[in-house]
Amino acid sequence: MCKNNVIGSGQGSPFGARIAIRNKKHRGTTAGMCPGYTQANVVILPKDEADAFLNYCLLNPKVAPILEILPPGSYRPRIAPGADIRRDIPLYDMYMDGYFEGSYSDIQELWQSDFVTFIMGCSFSFEQELIREGIPIRHIDMKKTCPMFKTSLPCNPYGFLYGNLIVSMRPVRDDHIERAIKISSLYPKAHGGPIQIGRPEEIGIRHIMLPDFGDVVPIGPDETPLFWACGLTATYAVLNSRPRLIITHHPHCMFITDIRINELKNFDDTLGL
Amino acid sequence: MCKNNVIGSGQGSPFGARIAIRNKKHRGTTAGMCPGYTQANVVILPKDEADAFLNYCLLNPKVAPILEILPPGSYRPRIAPGADIRRDIPLYDMYMDGYFEGSYSDIQELWQSDFVTFIMGCSFSFEQELIREGIPIRHIDMKKTCPMFKTSLPCNPYGFLYGNLIVSMRPVRDDHIERAIKISSLYPKAHGGPIQIGRPEEIGIRHIMLPDFGDVVPIGPDETPLFWACGLTATYAVLNSRPRLIITHHPHCMFITDIRINELKNFDDTLGL
Repeated sequence: MCKNNVIGSGQGSPFGARIAIRNKKHRGTTAGMCPGYTQANVVILPKDEADAFLNYCLLNPKVAPILEILPPGSYRPRIAPGADIRRDIPLYDMYMDGYFEGSYSDIQELWQSDFVTFIMGCSFSFEQELIREGIPIRHIDMKKTCPMFKTSLPCNPYGFLYGNLIVSMRPVRDDHIERAIKISSLYPKAHGGPIQIGRPEEIGIRHIMLPDFGDVVPIGPDETPLFWACGLTATYAVLNSRPRLIITHHPHCMFITDIRINELKNFDDTLGL
Repeated sequence: MCKNNVIGSGQGSPFGARIAIRNKKHRGTTAGMCPGYTQANVVILPKDEADAFLNYCLLNPKVAPILEILPPGSYRPRIAPGADIRRDIPLYDMYMDGYFEGSYSDIQELWQSDFVTFIMGCSFSFEQELIREGIPIRHIDMKKTCPMFKTSLPCNPYGFLYGNLIVSMRPVRDDHIERAIKISSLYPKAHGGPIQIGRPEEIGIRHIMLPDFGDVVPIGPDETPLFWACGLTATYAVLNSRPRLIITHHPHCMFITDIRINELKNFDDTLGL
């Protein structure tokens, strides 16, 4: 999947991938790119909206695990040297007053000096570790986007930010479930272990073949659907608050960081805050 | 507003209004039509989806106050003699698997013998009583649709049916508030008294000029926004469950019943169940 990343410091490196994205040589989903590195959700808000969002994240760490917060106006993350947060994501979505405004492949012209950028871990990060341990990921094998569902579980509200948990789903062969739980649980900064195993109806999901976001993937007779917290939850909580402006990555089009997946296990964001 | 209702048993009668709607002589919102009569939300579901919805309604009587439930296949409500539920609503919306499928001005060709129809009171019913008592209704005066908002208040879930309360908003002059509360509280089968007065932020509404549904209406300096439970809550709870099929009235295009607003005060649906 990283075949486009021939520019920069070598194939498959996060730097190379980001440059390929910046130069529009890679477009679309980042699932499967740069195995061994952490992928991230990005939420960009004007300063006066940012404080409430930080509180929401801290109240919901499983949903919104913070990797780095850039100070107002900064677009240079420490966790991705050489990166430009305004250019290195394949597609950005902008909302004004809670209404979708448009998608952009570059937000340099939209940038404001009061923009605060939140970078939060994504479950794409541990998918390669599951694959490396012999647990295939259906949506990567099928070149589809991961199915995601709204649930009946409310997250902790903060002020105007509220909403139910959104989850990603991956079918796992029954004899792999225990290891899938163990491996993903090592990465709390990428949503950690699954929040539900095999009983979608208990979290308000009635039709497993009707995801609210992403693609449908088949579930084999010897497989069980596992559900992980999804970063989209935080985006929808912000949208419920109808912020004047929010820019976020388009679903599945994540920001690729230089944090190695092994470093992520013990990642301490308090150093960066 | 009832000027079209010249057919049937006289101007302004519910029967006349329904015939005008049936013959496409009246289209669009029913707000302000047939003063003194009860207007209603309608939810039509296949029998195998209907039992869960009934339980949801019983758990959330403020949101979904049942006036009548028609047995499978029936389209002749007792509370509206001569009516045909397949033809007497200005516009119907159909959803399949939770996805919007289309709007129809007549559903005779879509009708199935297993359809169960729920008829539930709407706050349009008491608006005329407020007007009669000298409390003007802004959206009627402005010929707009009533503004409605999603809130942060979860309703009682039942199985796959869940979701937060949706409210309608009417600005009321400060010296009218007490009477507006008293009058609307007389009609529990039309959502009853307001659930919140003057503090939208306490129920997760940040921008009073950004309704989630309906139109914006101005609020004067001597006025306070009052919030009532809205029947749209129940529709969205059903949609979250992704039913195979649901047909419902288009927002603001209600079913006009023969229940006089005075009868509604003591309306006992247990006789009809």
